[in-house]
Amino acid sequence: MGDSGEERVVEHLRDAHAIEEQALKQLERAVELANDDQIEQVYREHLEETHEHEKLVRERLEAHDHEPSAVKDLTMRSGAVGLRQLADIAPETPVKLAMHFYAFEHLEIANYELLGRIARGAGDDETAQAAEKILEQERAAAEKVAETFDRAAELLLEAEESEGEEGSDSGSEEASREKEEAKS
Amino acid sequence: MGDSGEERVVEHLRDAHAIEEQALKQLERAVELANDDQIEQVYREHLEETHEHEKLVRERLEAHDHEPSAVKDLTMRSGAVGLRQLADIAPETPVKLAMHFYAFEHLEIANYELLGRIARGAGDDETAQAAEKILEQERAAAEKVAETFDRAAELLLEAEESEGEEGSDSGSEEASREKEEAKS
Repeated sequence: MGDSGEERVVEHLRDAHAIEEQALKQLERAVELANDDQIEQVYREHLEETHEHEKLVRERLEAHDHEPSAVKDLTMRSGAVGLRQLADIAPETPVKLAMHFYAFEHLEIANYELLGRIARGAGDDETAQAAEKILEQERAAAEKVAETFDRAAELLLEAEESEGEEGSDSGSEEASREKEEAKS
Repeated sequence: MGDSGEERVVEHLRDAHAIEEQALKQLERAVELANDDQIEQVYREHLEETHEHEKLVRERLEAHDHEPSAVKDLTMRSGAVGLRQLADIAPETPVKLAMHFYAFEHLEIANYELLGRIARGAGDDETAQAAEKILEQERAAAEKVAETFDRAAELLLEAEESEGEEGSDSGSEEASREKEEAKS
């Protein structure tokens, strides 16, 4: 592998690592916000896998004598693929959570599809194999997020019905909790 | 359809409209940045479809006696689904462009999957039909973006080779243009 080929792989691995770091933060938040057992389980399981992905990507960076980017750099890198501030935004309803993570999982799918191709093109088969392994799990995770669409729409319409009854605004987990408490 | 059911549909239609507005801005930028005929064609064709989608969503809003949100509100709405600032970010390489739009198309897919369900649940079949029609085209567009992965990786590795030869950084169209100008 030529030096500049290796550079491209390392660059893409750094982006991949920044995205996994964002994924960890956002999935932790999603578990807190889900407010529904079935949906929470989807995010919790993928959070566990994501710890493994972060480690795999970090190991590939270390194999090239590189460390993951520092936080400041990470934010800039994330910004470059349109993720700036995503970590700070709390999707408020199961519907927004589902939209957000369906998009995010596909950002990761595209990321590993491309990392696989770039690594193969640069002759780095180990990185390509890691990318293909993670890719498979990201695809499965995206499918699971899609499976929350029915429940998310249901919850929105239920919230709407009880809103009609109680005259209060729902949507955020906090509001729902307050409602639950008010009911009991 | 109850008033609060209609409210949910209108709310989701406003989000959908904000996303289509973002899509228009970003696809225009993508056409400028593509710097490759095959890739440019993908974004150009979807830009045309997106004008149609924006119109369809606006018509459904108008059917409920609502207008699309004003720009300020649009930014806030977009922020709510994690799109804040996306319009300002120029993905610099075909690889980043592909990642960005693959994620963005899936945000739209999720959006219309959910709009369809919410509208059906609220008894608004016309909106549900519009959502299903747009959904089909968003799915096709996502597939076409995925078809650019090979070419995007190829261009990155080609840029890397010529970078090696020319000793200059490539990637963004602007950088390439500056390079062209510097040469002439």
